Amino acid sequence: MSVNRRVLMAKHPDAEPTDDCFTVDEVPVPEIGDGEALVAVRYLSVDPAQRMWMNPGGVYNMGAQVGAPMMSVGFGEVVASRSSGYAVGSTVNGMLGWQQYAVIDGDTRRAAPVPAGIDGPAALGVFGMNGQTAYWGLYDIGRPQPGETVLVSAAAGATGSLVGQLARIAGARVVGLASSAAKRDWIREELGFDEAIDYRADDLPQQLDKACPDGVNVYFDNVGGVILDLALERLAMRGRVVLCGAISAYNTNTPGPGPSRYRQLIRQRGRMEGFIVMDYAPRYGEALARLREWEADGRLRHREDVVRGLDNAPEALRRVLRGDHLGKLIVQV
Amino acid sequence: MSVNRRVLMAKHPDAEPTDDCFTVDEVPVPEIGDGEALVAVRYLSVDPAQRMWMNPGGVYNMGAQVGAPMMSVGFGEVVASRSSGYAVGSTVNGMLGWQQYAVIDGDTRRAAPVPAGIDGPAALGVFGMNGQTAYWGLYDIGRPQPGETVLVSAAAGATGSLVGQLARIAGARVVGLASSAAKRDWIREELGFDEAIDYRADDLPQQLDKACPDGVNVYFDNVGGVILDLALERLAMRGRVVLCGAISAYNTNTPGPGPSRYRQLIRQRGRMEGFIVMDYAPRYGEALARLREWEADGRLRHREDVVRGLDNAPEALRRVLRGDHLGKLIVQV
Repeated sequence: MSVNRRVLMAKHPDAEPTDDCFTVDEVPVPEIGDGEALVAVRYLSVDPAQRMWMNPGGVYNMGAQVGAPMMSVGFGEVVASRSSGYAVGSTVNGMLGWQQYAVIDGDTRRAAPVPAGIDGPAALGVFGMNGQTAYWGLYDIGRPQPGETVLVSAAAGATGSLVGQLARIAGARVVGLASSAAKRDWIREELGFDEAIDYRADDLPQQLDKACPDGVNVYFDNVGGVILDLALERLAMRGRVVLCGAISAYNTNTPGPGPSRYRQLIRQRGRMEGFIVMDYAPRYGEALARLREWEADGRLRHREDVVRGLDNAPEALRRVLRGDHLGKLIVQV
Repeated sequence: MSVNRRVLMAKHPDAEPTDDCFTVDEVPVPEIGDGEALVAVRYLSVDPAQRMWMNPGGVYNMGAQVGAPMMSVGFGEVVASRSSGYAVGSTVNGMLGWQQYAVIDGDTRRAAPVPAGIDGPAALGVFGMNGQTAYWGLYDIGRPQPGETVLVSAAAGATGSLVGQLARIAGARVVGLASSAAKRDWIREELGFDEAIDYRADDLPQQLDKACPDGVNVYFDNVGGVILDLALERLAMRGRVVLCGAISAYNTNTPGPGPSRYRQLIRQRGRMEGFIVMDYAPRYGEALARLREWEADGRLRHREDVVRGLDNAPEALRRVLRGDHLGKLIVQV
């Protein structure tokens, strides 16, 4: 364990994060100081938001730095510790970066202990950021009621696939948008979505009309763009739009057009609201207990798509941005 | 009182509601049936939203009809009644249309009795639709807290001028946008706005930055367009955008671009919400009691700009769309 292999951000991307945006190096494994611990990174979370973190200035006041390991959520094992908060052999989940070893300090906002019984892939997905995002975004912002219709974009993705199942648990009808037949089969047949629609279909507006005859009560927006406008056009009275992300705008440095149908919010007395899952950190335990219960009794299913090898992280990031994955995309370091 | 002069909508406008969109006729004063009353229309409310009502299909499921009196809120006196709900000599406020006489039935959603002691101009403005819109939009949707900054567009208009004063009553700092020096002087010196800014100024972004150093906690949006984006750019953490109207888009049949900066709602955990004041009808009395109290003690000031003559209603409508008025624009029939 003398060498720490890292994938650094070499430059800010113009559009897609091409290979020349990254460079690999090897440095000595860092020494730890008082209050610190050394983590061997086992798995990396691959998230569309990482593309935004690569822009100059980043997003949400945080961003990847040129010349530093690419910013990433990861799961790892504590292999050395000079901190009372982290025992050797315990596991953590946090901002570890694209590297084999990371140093963490006592700041649990950067890396938090993972409860016993949760493995790496689940810690990053269903019981990690995606599960928390789906739980709080849907239940605290969207607030679906029994019998209402919930529309979810990127529905076969790590967050969307959970949102749909949580909406079903709340008694709502769920319509998911996904690009491939394999994805649509999965969310409809295995996850219990009521409808699955190809968002690239020429007759998407008509398919949405048919799938949402009483309009859309809650739209969980992971993508922005044209689909946000289509959802606003179909917003039911007092409908809610949960702004979770805008994947359609991530591969660019300039903001695209806004939703031209936003005035539907007036006509329909609607609400469009954004959130950042980190704000719910003090309540993560509350959501985790529910998510584990539902996962254990089979009501909440999840699937991980694992890419092997740290050096393949850039390609994995491009894949998640293209939507070329099912469920949670993860890099095994 | 044998003749009822009316201004009809002759055709849907393409852009501005030009003179050829209207025609004047004279018909006999209608007979009333059981349960109906005849109202002599005294004052007409001139509202930007009327332009939207003129579009094919109207808006909010209601619209002006070609060949019928132009749809309008008005104030009038009951001059004949076969309804127990309306005494001759009492006054009403409701959808009376551009005409000298209107027939009303028992539906108080169409025409409601005006409490004693409220004159026509006040019944249409500060104690009517504008007062209710300002009250519920600001207090129920925007919810300003003491010390917060409230930004108001169309701030010298009938609704905006009240919104700013209600925000001051709630203990907020108020920044108003208005186009002329006379308007800005009025809202700053007579209505107590903390700042008044010319929204046509070349350095509008810089002026907004200076006037809102801690960002915008509540933006009360009457106009849409570029100013909505400028407000979103400056949204404070957990800021609220109250969607009341979109005057900038009214003189057109095609929706303009949406707010390209809507993703600020994610970053700032913001909320953008529309409302329709009619939904608050069951609670109008509650707001009216407060508005009358504040008007009586001088904390809520209002001003009416009165145009004389029914035939001048089309030009009055164009004036309100141009913003060429101070406070509440009214036609005296």
